[in-house]
Amino acid sequence: VKVTVLGDGAWGRALAHVARAGEHDVEIWSRRAPFDLTAQTLIVAVPAQSVRDVLKMVPTTNKHIIIAAKGIERGTHMLMADVVRDVAPSAIPLVLSGPSFADDVVKGLPTAVTLAADDLDTAKIFAQHFSLPHFRLYASDDVRGVELGGALKNVLAIACGISDGLGLGESARAALTTRGFAELSRLAEAMGAQPRTLMGLSGIGDLLLTASSTKSRNYAFGFRLGQGLPVAEALAQSSGIVEGAFTALVARALAAQHNIDMPIINAVHAIVEDGAKVVDQVTALMQRPAAIE
Amino acid sequence: VKVTVLGDGAWGRALAHVARAGEHDVEIWSRRAPFDLTAQTLIVAVPAQSVRDVLKMVPTTNKHIIIAAKGIERGTHMLMADVVRDVAPSAIPLVLSGPSFADDVVKGLPTAVTLAADDLDTAKIFAQHFSLPHFRLYASDDVRGVELGGALKNVLAIACGISDGLGLGESARAALTTRGFAELSRLAEAMGAQPRTLMGLSGIGDLLLTASSTKSRNYAFGFRLGQGLPVAEALAQSSGIVEGAFTALVARALAAQHNIDMPIINAVHAIVEDGAKVVDQVTALMQRPAAIE
Repeated sequence: VKVTVLGDGAWGRALAHVARAGEHDVEIWSRRAPFDLTAQTLIVAVPAQSVRDVLKMVPTTNKHIIIAAKGIERGTHMLMADVVRDVAPSAIPLVLSGPSFADDVVKGLPTAVTLAADDLDTAKIFAQHFSLPHFRLYASDDVRGVELGGALKNVLAIACGISDGLGLGESARAALTTRGFAELSRLAEAMGAQPRTLMGLSGIGDLLLTASSTKSRNYAFGFRLGQGLPVAEALAQSSGIVEGAFTALVARALAAQHNIDMPIINAVHAIVEDGAKVVDQVTALMQRPAAIE
Repeated sequence: VKVTVLGDGAWGRALAHVARAGEHDVEIWSRRAPFDLTAQTLIVAVPAQSVRDVLKMVPTTNKHIIIAAKGIERGTHMLMADVVRDVAPSAIPLVLSGPSFADDVVKGLPTAVTLAADDLDTAKIFAQHFSLPHFRLYASDDVRGVELGGALKNVLAIACGISDGLGLGESARAALTTRGFAELSRLAEAMGAQPRTLMGLSGIGDLLLTASSTKSRNYAFGFRLGQGLPVAEALAQSSGIVEGAFTALVARALAAQHNIDMPIINAVHAIVEDGAKVVDQVTALMQRPAAIE
């Protein structure tokens, strides 16, 4: 397969690396080094907020567009496949998402992620094209479920970072991850995600990786908040866009719209957007009445 | 409430600690220091394989018995609530299970676990009795689901330990945890567990803690295997019973009985019981055909 990867960041380069290892013909396109595309398959590995702009810069007619960006577009509140459908109505969007650090992939360490398309056969064909023994793709036809897991987990990664920054321990982080996952699932299911997807690689799998590793930008941002840094300073120290800080805002709006209780995501929002004190939010969470699981 | 904790190990002492903090009247009973019980509520915090013997040594008629031991009884393949029902037919079994390290609980760090009883009202009442701001109990009526999560996760903790011992990275461990959770869920659901329970604290919550921490005995055992130690030596270096090594055997038998595919659990079984090479098992797992999620 002839493939163009849009984006020359760590993730774009990692995906180009595995595609080349699979003996595909791969080029990396970036805004800094653009060229005329010929490839019928595009892999989009730019930050979520740049996907729309980048897709406008390249030909997209009838192409398969594999989205490897996680997040919700500001302003429109669109998921990335919807951005593709909006900008490139004749293209077929696929979504690649799951627990994967670029450096693990480049090192050839085993990684498994989900590849979703509206049509399961399309997902299966592309999963077969790009699977390697150390880079396994699981096919899914739940595009929306895969996208919601990948976007919402960033908010919970901030919460888990805060917990670890405060030194609350591994048991607390596991509880926060699990109860946060219950919130994420409630919202995602209300928005059409399949429960099976949320229990998979792009859901709980990606969450548990992102919510426990300093390699995750969102977790690292939360960790600094837990250590007592003000929001502005913690953001300034981040190495790139902290997608979850914005997603908290959108998630709160979506939760209100679907009438869903999301205490952990609300707490992150209160801290990041309203300047609430970290300790007050943690105390409030712990004093909620015990519930039924 | 007047409570006797059976077992003076770290977990028994931690549970006695929180019960006292909740202003209950608490005594710790052990085989080394037995006495005549008067309490109507027992908390059983001995290793799974000792639960039957210990329950035979104390009066159990009409008592509430909260089981804080995780595992499947050798020989009978019974879960712990079934052992209680067998030994003490007039008693009411409850199961306490979830992501919780004894030292986190004793330090007063936030912890949340599930408390299950066949009757949801019973679970709710006891959850209220024993909940503290930093020790939250979520009520459930899925005794079997809670027990299966707590028992089966030990096998997956060995698998994740092996992966880390081999240095396969965080992405690999996240994939293994997630795909292992899919196996656990398939078997547990076939045996009557509710999916909701598996997605909760006693399911994925406990799994993600146990499968990522050197404080977990099963993970630590797996880690030594991954580093190349033979099974006998890795077992000898363990600080107590490695429950998951035995559970792998039972899980394989149960999976065969319910006609369920469990490649990760089978790989752990092959390594622990049949002396298969760790690297061969990992390679075989990675070369399975890509699947649908």
